[in-house]
Amino acid sequence: MQASPPRSDRLPTPSPAIDVAFTAAEIRPTGVAVVVDVLRATSTIVTALGIGYSRVLCTGSADEARRLRAPGRLLAGEHECRPIEGFDYGNSPGALDEARGEELVLCTTNGTPAILSALSTAGEVLLGALLNLEALIERIPSGEDVTIVCAGTGGRFALEDAYAAGRMVTRLEGEWTDAARAAERIASAYDQAYEPLAQSADAAVLRATDQAADIEFCAQESVSALVPEIAEATGEVAVASIPTPAQAAGESFGRPPARIEHASK
Amino acid sequence: MQASPPRSDRLPTPSPAIDVAFTAAEIRPTGVAVVVDVLRATSTIVTALGIGYSRVLCTGSADEARRLRAPGRLLAGEHECRPIEGFDYGNSPGALDEARGEELVLCTTNGTPAILSALSTAGEVLLGALLNLEALIERIPSGEDVTIVCAGTGGRFALEDAYAAGRMVTRLEGEWTDAARAAERIASAYDQAYEPLAQSADAAVLRATDQAADIEFCAQESVSALVPEIAEATGEVAVASIPTPAQAAGESFGRPPARIEHASK
Repeated sequence: MQASPPRSDRLPTPSPAIDVAFTAAEIRPTGVAVVVDVLRATSTIVTALGIGYSRVLCTGSADEARRLRAPGRLLAGEHECRPIEGFDYGNSPGALDEARGEELVLCTTNGTPAILSALSTAGEVLLGALLNLEALIERIPSGEDVTIVCAGTGGRFALEDAYAAGRMVTRLEGEWTDAARAAERIASAYDQAYEPLAQSADAAVLRATDQAADIEFCAQESVSALVPEIAEATGEVAVASIPTPAQAAGESFGRPPARIEHASK
Repeated sequence: MQASPPRSDRLPTPSPAIDVAFTAAEIRPTGVAVVVDVLRATSTIVTALGIGYSRVLCTGSADEARRLRAPGRLLAGEHECRPIEGFDYGNSPGALDEARGEELVLCTTNGTPAILSALSTAGEVLLGALLNLEALIERIPSGEDVTIVCAGTGGRFALEDAYAAGRMVTRLEGEWTDAARAAERIASAYDQAYEPLAQSADAAVLRATDQAADIEFCAQESVSALVPEIAEATGEVAVASIPTPAQAAGESFGRPPARIEHASK
């Protein structure tokens, strides 16, 4: 097979658009959407997949989570920062120590709607946190339009998600939108991740409910090599998992899940 | 009349909330809303009132603007940055030289919905731009919850509005929300106003339509002492004007309008 001859009539490749949606309502059609909910849904999902759960089923409703209960499936989540009766875990990534089943059902109020919105407008949906920042950047295909979708809080701007979005944008080449540019400015205004996370309204709620340790946990940068993808969604449930090379080729699931490093706690 | 005795049982006054809505969809109930559309609606309104128009009637629809035409009323505005047939002016604040009538009807796509949203959620609606920054800060009553409402562009984040919001937030004491804190970080990342304005997507459109001079014009800070208020709105039309002390006391309109200084153009 011959190499293609150089073509002088080839159109220059347009730069991909790098965008940030500070709330899920602002998502526009894009190639790759990266949903970010630093405090705490995407941090929890990265952690859960890292300790051995093969899939995380995300839902916005505690009732739906209960309906999903099955052998080998554990339930995690909170409603207004309170534990949900009958659930196995809260929504604290630091509290996940080892997988006690095959799958985790995660009830997350802000993360799930953001993931479902992203699925309806993007060709591919990845999940990002500070924990997996470096791996995420490597995973994003170059040349694709990318939108970082901040889950926010109750439909509102969340500082920690904007900070993480800015950290990601800084590493992505392309045409930055106004929002991407602003996110980069926000991120570059801080020396390290703990400060914007700790200043956020979500952190204040965590402190008020004795879960301040999660702030430090979620502020760890690039300690996991896992980039969760949303491979399927049915109704109001989105399934996050790590595809293995074997899975990508349509073969059976074999690789043991990577384990997240718990750095300076 | 005696001074009140010191009261030890007085509750501490809670700090007012200082918030920013990066898009009009994010407005929550507040005491004072400051609507900001730097490129260009609020800059144009401040300028129009400064050169002698007594009121600016804002509408989002060119047809509505035409219906409002009356003796002494001129029409200004654009549709997708193109002049509107039959209108007296475009939407360029720099092109307003002297009042050629009593009132100006301004067709503004992003500004009007933001003003109408603000009216439905705030006790008082002021209009802000960089042009009237200092006067605006002095005009905002202390102790009130304040939301800076960015008009944005087509429902999306606009860098120039976020920058202006940050410049305002920096001067307002109270409990900053996550969005207010982010706006402050964005503003403090720039040495002067021209840079974020020129980097914005709206500026690119102005340059592409030979209206780049407006960028420099709207980047002038605190050159006007006028703070427009929205005193009335009927249906889809909001009326901006400058109340005089006499008006505030229910008397007739007498004060000559202040003239905007045209600094370094």
